[in-house]
Amino acid sequence: MDNETKKQGPFAGLLVVDLTHVLSGPFATNILCDLGARVIKIEEPPDGDESRYWGPFVKGESLEYSFVNRGKESIMLDLTKEDDKTIFLNMVKQADILAENFRPGTMEKLGFSYEVLSALNPRLIYASLSGFGQSGAASQFPAYDTIIQAMSGLMMQTGFPDGPPVRAGTSVVDMTTGLYLFGGIVTALYARNHSGRGAYVDIAMFDSAVSFLEQGLLTYLATGVSPGRVGNRDLYISPFDIYKTKDKYIAICCGNDHLFAKLCSALDLSQLITDSRFATNQERVIHENELKTILEKKLMNENADHWLKVIDKVGVPAGPILTVEEAMKLPEIHDRKMLVESGGVMMPGMPIKISGFPDSSTRPPAPKLNQEGTSLREEFGNRQK
Amino acid sequence: MDNETKKQGPFAGLLVVDLTHVLSGPFATNILCDLGARVIKIEEPPDGDESRYWGPFVKGESLEYSFVNRGKESIMLDLTKEDDKTIFLNMVKQADILAENFRPGTMEKLGFSYEVLSALNPRLIYASLSGFGQSGAASQFPAYDTIIQAMSGLMMQTGFPDGPPVRAGTSVVDMTTGLYLFGGIVTALYARNHSGRGAYVDIAMFDSAVSFLEQGLLTYLATGVSPGRVGNRDLYISPFDIYKTKDKYIAICCGNDHLFAKLCSALDLSQLITDSRFATNQERVIHENELKTILEKKLMNENADHWLKVIDKVGVPAGPILTVEEAMKLPEIHDRKMLVESGGVMMPGMPIKISGFPDSSTRPPAPKLNQEGTSLREEFGNRQK
Repeated sequence: MDNETKKQGPFAGLLVVDLTHVLSGPFATNILCDLGARVIKIEEPPDGDESRYWGPFVKGESLEYSFVNRGKESIMLDLTKEDDKTIFLNMVKQADILAENFRPGTMEKLGFSYEVLSALNPRLIYASLSGFGQSGAASQFPAYDTIIQAMSGLMMQTGFPDGPPVRAGTSVVDMTTGLYLFGGIVTALYARNHSGRGAYVDIAMFDSAVSFLEQGLLTYLATGVSPGRVGNRDLYISPFDIYKTKDKYIAICCGNDHLFAKLCSALDLSQLITDSRFATNQERVIHENELKTILEKKLMNENADHWLKVIDKVGVPAGPILTVEEAMKLPEIHDRKMLVESGGVMMPGMPIKISGFPDSSTRPPAPKLNQEGTSLREEFGNRQK
Repeated sequence: MDNETKKQGPFAGLLVVDLTHVLSGPFATNILCDLGARVIKIEEPPDGDESRYWGPFVKGESLEYSFVNRGKESIMLDLTKEDDKTIFLNMVKQADILAENFRPGTMEKLGFSYEVLSALNPRLIYASLSGFGQSGAASQFPAYDTIIQAMSGLMMQTGFPDGPPVRAGTSVVDMTTGLYLFGGIVTALYARNHSGRGAYVDIAMFDSAVSFLEQGLLTYLATGVSPGRVGNRDLYISPFDIYKTKDKYIAICCGNDHLFAKLCSALDLSQLITDSRFATNQERVIHENELKTILEKKLMNENADHWLKVIDKVGVPAGPILTVEEAMKLPEIHDRKMLVESGGVMMPGMPIKISGFPDSSTRPPAPKLNQEGTSLREEFGNRQK
């Protein structure tokens, strides 16, 4: 019996042995799976991936688990037992990619170091995701998205100067680290086409967070001083912030003097264009608070919808602050297939759109725990090899 | 004269024609460049990439420009003029990848649609990054990171219930979209090894933001209601938040009952383990505020350093809230080469670590405007072809 689904996409034909759990690792292998790879998720007895038990739930299943594991196959294996080890190692022998996000050292203790597995399968790409990387002082330190947002400086630079540090309202570190893992795996796949050999890919949540701290980190590196929290505004461009109108906040982004002049005209505030406090971007950044007060005084006279039309007409980038619910009702969600149906529930779609491959608005469902256990044991058991 | 630098890395030998500007597009081609590709950045006369003029500055150069353009070559081309078009098209004929992030329609107006360029070079991977994608209702809508954070729902779910919406304190949408563009490009490179043909890659900032909204979006999809802002805590797990100590905030993340029990013992609050309000995660989420009050009352007795040692000892994930400056002084920054030297200045390193390729702590500098203009005009001028 061949349990392999016929899959389409750039990664069709690739086999991924997926030891990742919770969010960041499964998100990486989810992209491989969405783009055509066969992904076998190995879950630990007796309960499997702990994210199966985390809300929100739809029809009794964790929506987060269903999202990042859609289209995968599930088998429960106890990797400390010989029989299950055999099945795992038979999978590894045939696999293109092994992904794992245990605490560094766990795979070695199980006898599954890169050295051991790459000797069995020199073409194997062995991809590890961890909090602080496989090497270094902090490698044993436990990590969650919130802890890395805290320790990287990201939380300290989110929020208002007079308020507490704020967590970005989504697991940006988990998701970004998953994206780096995906990128690292595909890079190694590309390199394998030339070398014929696999590689070890080592991605850390902390590294990933550091790589995208951007203005805050660059300012520290340039000046020796952490810039601290500045609310919603840009550190170096003004006006570039969110502003109160009569009913709601709107975002207005004037990247240059030209756009600022257009904004002033649209708001019937042309006198600001020649006001020495606001004549250049540099001056506007210095007089940020005065400028914001003047702009909001005007904007408070009408509703957000009115102003967005007025500002859009002159070509100044601006937009409403939407709830997730409002955002999901925008026509671009449908146009871009950014909500897809999977196993009877709606979930986020796939942002990577590549010509020549389908971008389906339905996706196969996530597996129940051990759903393909029996057939996978048969496929990768010793009698078959 | 051959202007090509001898480069090492998995992408050595690849030629990227880079029409991207500002942050998200250049961040994607920066990863290709860091990992070995030759990247020729085409800049518009007379001033080139506008990010050259955005702070912070070090030694008179924009550190943001220097970060995301390190190792690239620069040529100034006016793509509306015939002579410069010829040079550009000669580059395209030899290129593996073309990347651009103009407003959708701009490349078509210049005569450089995917159809035209792929006819010249069927192996070309043509990668476009935009606010809302190449198709659909909003494709002409201007976008900056702040606007997409606002319109996707991310800003509305960041911050505290009683405060305003908050921008995540870095350009997460720009960086994530750049990562998706990188991932899409490498996916198309992998597919080309089988098909012999290039592809069109279409990545949107809005799609990218939607794909990582995670708990907020999943909760809306599960319940029909946007969850709103919850500060630093997790929506579904408790205690999983930041807490005040005598001197500083610390993050504590108890993913399950077992860790909660350990935390209580460590804080000498064992009575909470059997308190019916806190006996299960579900109960703790409901009684979140009461639990936080009790924990903080205890934590306020000692400094952060004291508590982190105590909590670490029992194996509960926890960490300090650090400024960027404090974060950059952690030993893992050095161990993982996450600050590198380039052109005499320090900047973020490369999180993708792949065995068999160097992960250097020095990187070649970003180019001055048109630095390689003369030699590139010679290399790709008509006489040479």
